[in-house]
Amino acid sequence: GERVRRHSALAWRTAVKVGKDDPRRVVHSLKVGLALTLVSLLYLIKPLFEGIGQNAMSAVLTVVVVMEFTVGATLGKGLNRGLGTLVAGSLAFLVEYVADIPGRIFQAFFIGSAVFILGVVTTYVRFIPHIKKNYDYGVMIFLLTFNLITVSSYRVDNVWAIAKDRIATIAIGGGLCLVMTLLVFPNWSGEDLHNSTISKLEGLANSVQACVLRYFNGSENQETQDDASDELIYKGYKAVLDSKSKDETLALQASWEPRWSTLWHRIPWRQYTIVGVTLLHFSYTVVALHGCLLSEIQTPGSIRLLYKDSCIRLAEEVFKALRELANSIRSKRQFSPQALSDNINEALQNLNDDLKSQPQLFVGSKNFGGTTHAEEDTRVSFSSVRSDCSSMFEYKSKEISGEVSMEGHKKVLKPLMSKIVMTSLEFSEALPFAAFTSMLVEMVAKLERVIDAVDDLAKLSRFREFRDEDEIV
Amino acid sequence: GERVRRHSALAWRTAVKVGKDDPRRVVHSLKVGLALTLVSLLYLIKPLFEGIGQNAMSAVLTVVVVMEFTVGATLGKGLNRGLGTLVAGSLAFLVEYVADIPGRIFQAFFIGSAVFILGVVTTYVRFIPHIKKNYDYGVMIFLLTFNLITVSSYRVDNVWAIAKDRIATIAIGGGLCLVMTLLVFPNWSGEDLHNSTISKLEGLANSVQACVLRYFNGSENQETQDDASDELIYKGYKAVLDSKSKDETLALQASWEPRWSTLWHRIPWRQYTIVGVTLLHFSYTVVALHGCLLSEIQTPGSIRLLYKDSCIRLAEEVFKALRELANSIRSKRQFSPQALSDNINEALQNLNDDLKSQPQLFVGSKNFGGTTHAEEDTRVSFSSVRSDCSSMFEYKSKEISGEVSMEGHKKVLKPLMSKIVMTSLEFSEALPFAAFTSMLVEMVAKLERVIDAVDDLAKLSRFREFRDEDEIV
Repeated sequence: GERVRRHSALAWRTAVKVGKDDPRRVVHSLKVGLALTLVSLLYLIKPLFEGIGQNAMSAVLTVVVVMEFTVGATLGKGLNRGLGTLVAGSLAFLVEYVADIPGRIFQAFFIGSAVFILGVVTTYVRFIPHIKKNYDYGVMIFLLTFNLITVSSYRVDNVWAIAKDRIATIAIGGGLCLVMTLLVFPNWSGEDLHNSTISKLEGLANSVQACVLRYFNGSENQETQDDASDELIYKGYKAVLDSKSKDETLALQASWEPRWSTLWHRIPWRQYTIVGVTLLHFSYTVVALHGCLLSEIQTPGSIRLLYKDSCIRLAEEVFKALRELANSIRSKRQFSPQALSDNINEALQNLNDDLKSQPQLFVGSKNFGGTTHAEEDTRVSFSSVRSDCSSMFEYKSKEISGEVSMEGHKKVLKPLMSKIVMTSLEFSEALPFAAFTSMLVEMVAKLERVIDAVDDLAKLSRFREFRDEDEIV
Repeated sequence: GERVRRHSALAWRTAVKVGKDDPRRVVHSLKVGLALTLVSLLYLIKPLFEGIGQNAMSAVLTVVVVMEFTVGATLGKGLNRGLGTLVAGSLAFLVEYVADIPGRIFQAFFIGSAVFILGVVTTYVRFIPHIKKNYDYGVMIFLLTFNLITVSSYRVDNVWAIAKDRIATIAIGGGLCLVMTLLVFPNWSGEDLHNSTISKLEGLANSVQACVLRYFNGSENQETQDDASDELIYKGYKAVLDSKSKDETLALQASWEPRWSTLWHRIPWRQYTIVGVTLLHFSYTVVALHGCLLSEIQTPGSIRLLYKDSCIRLAEEVFKALRELANSIRSKRQFSPQALSDNINEALQNLNDDLKSQPQLFVGSKNFGGTTHAEEDTRVSFSSVRSDCSSMFEYKSKEISGEVSMEGHKKVLKPLMSKIVMTSLEFSEALPFAAFTSMLVEMVAKLERVIDAVDDLAKLSRFREFRDEDEIV
């Protein structure tokens, strides 16, 4: 009793959350219900039934199978289903025409062979990556319809009627799906892709900000704050790393969406994919930066303090740039790459000057031998190497689907683990700082690619021109 | 004529390649053809036809829809289809029983409402992540069958016959699919997952090896060799980054596969997923390492030479460990984590000693002030900062699916790009070397996680014990 109640309460909360996360889901559910009811009327209302007959069921099936969340997905599936049926119908008639020979056994043999050959070829074709990606469903429907017609033709004389009805009902069902998805509160894959790109940019901006702030202020703050910022950093890049396949699907669906839509004038889904890839590469540097943060060879605060201002400034320019890109895409206006790059350049130059003024830290500075007073600040005790990133791995448990219990990993650290990692190697503490700085610079290089890609996107989407009064936030 | 011929030649080559990449695909295609032919016999052969009748088509459809490449996928789909049909059948009878009231219009209204409500609820339920992941297909079949039976009940008296036949034919079709996939050259998702894990480990080993060798020998070699090694590095981690969703699907399918199989005694697919996640995190460090390689602030050879031996040794231990893990999984024997960790520890210690002996490079070494002779070797001219990773971005074009043309990016570097990136900032050249070393150390920490996870895997899979005569390659 108690357990059942607890479970059903959990199920209810999950269900409510699904709707709250995206209220369009509720609308979509209602749309599907409505479409199904409408298509059932074909069967329930007498005059309609007499026109279509038993095949009305095929229209119901089409609605169940074809109607998807977005316009692009529905169009893709609908066209696949329609084309698959048409091609299969034509081919089946050819086969039937040829099979129209005397001798029942020979005829059965012929039909069997046709089914076998088409089955083999079709299944094989579905392995071809291009087909699998775009036409998998259509090819399956082709095989299905071909078999339906060819095999039926053995016992039914008027196969043409079967085929015609099937095509007509699929057209009715598919048409209804299209009307419902296109005209009643339409959801566009292109729009989702657009919003997903914006939120990825913003997530990365938050990630970078939290990362740098924590690196330079972390030790002064509470543990709990650390956890919160870790969470934020992780969420930012995790979203980008995880959305890869989802965004590819959205781009694929967007490619089916009509270009003439007033809402989505020529959405350049290819360019969104390119932006996604540059963001993916950018996020790898964020992962590496986060790794520096979690690494336990920590450069002491005294060294970090020397470069705090210039590093924070560079990072600020990076996340300001990311936010500017997000805003540009959101408000559909172009941005000024020049202004962004000028700011970043200045910050880079600034960091460089600071690094050069502390020659002890890195070899190769021109004015070597000067400022030796820094030596005292930077001389510090060694800490042990424990770049174990254990907090990173707690997050990992979320990555693995809910089902995978992490108990295997929650157990006390094995002796082995601690043995390697805490051998108290005495690496220099400047090493991780150098890595941090290097990653920041690397990040700027990747950011450049992102800016480029978004700039192309803005031009391809014909965003309105950047005007000087457009303030850069 | 010419163009058509070229296109069809290309299509033919693609088709042949698909088969060569995995010959099991050819076998699977033949199996599907055979299954379809067999199920068609239900319709073609008279005594069989008289037993089953028109509904034989439903068996054909089941075979087309349910038969998948691996046992797990087929079982998952088949059980989903079976369960969905059964539940829908029961519920539909309940509705029919209630709807058995006088008044045609009222009855139609009742059926319409039931269709609407079930349509809404079912569509909504499909958004719940857990359902979507495991039972999406089953819920769709439920909705489909429910509508089929409920709506038919309005005009057909003997709905029970329809439902019974439908269930029987689905059982026949599903059973045939299971027999074909389970008994005739079965493909196991668990086996694919196993092999994918091995090849990921080996790919990463190659990646790390190529990365480190190129970092220390790169400048001496030819451009073409660089490209080849870049290719190798890229392929290694790319496979891991890309296989995430594929491997999750395989794990899901493997969870459907029977545990009692003699071939696959209790495959711990959860643990394979965990290994996959640790490999994913490991591969991020490889990406970062590759970034260091492509970064164009290059530490001059003279500095690298100082640490070449110890870095290469550490990297060697890393890729030896990865290969050992791969071999352990392949030959299903346990390995000695202790031996691996001892070697890695020693190499780490070695690198640490080397770093300490060159105090100029990094602050904080204890024996500061000593070896000043190193200064001359390490003093070098500045190079410009161009961490642009252009070669990385050429690879990118492969990442974006074949369709996406990269012309937008192939154009001459924009002035903007070159402006930021080549501003000739004079960062110290030791900076990227420090990053490289730091990444190597970070990589060892991640490797630790991988070793842990594979060790758990070996225990869960009950691999045979490690014996001292098992040589570590």
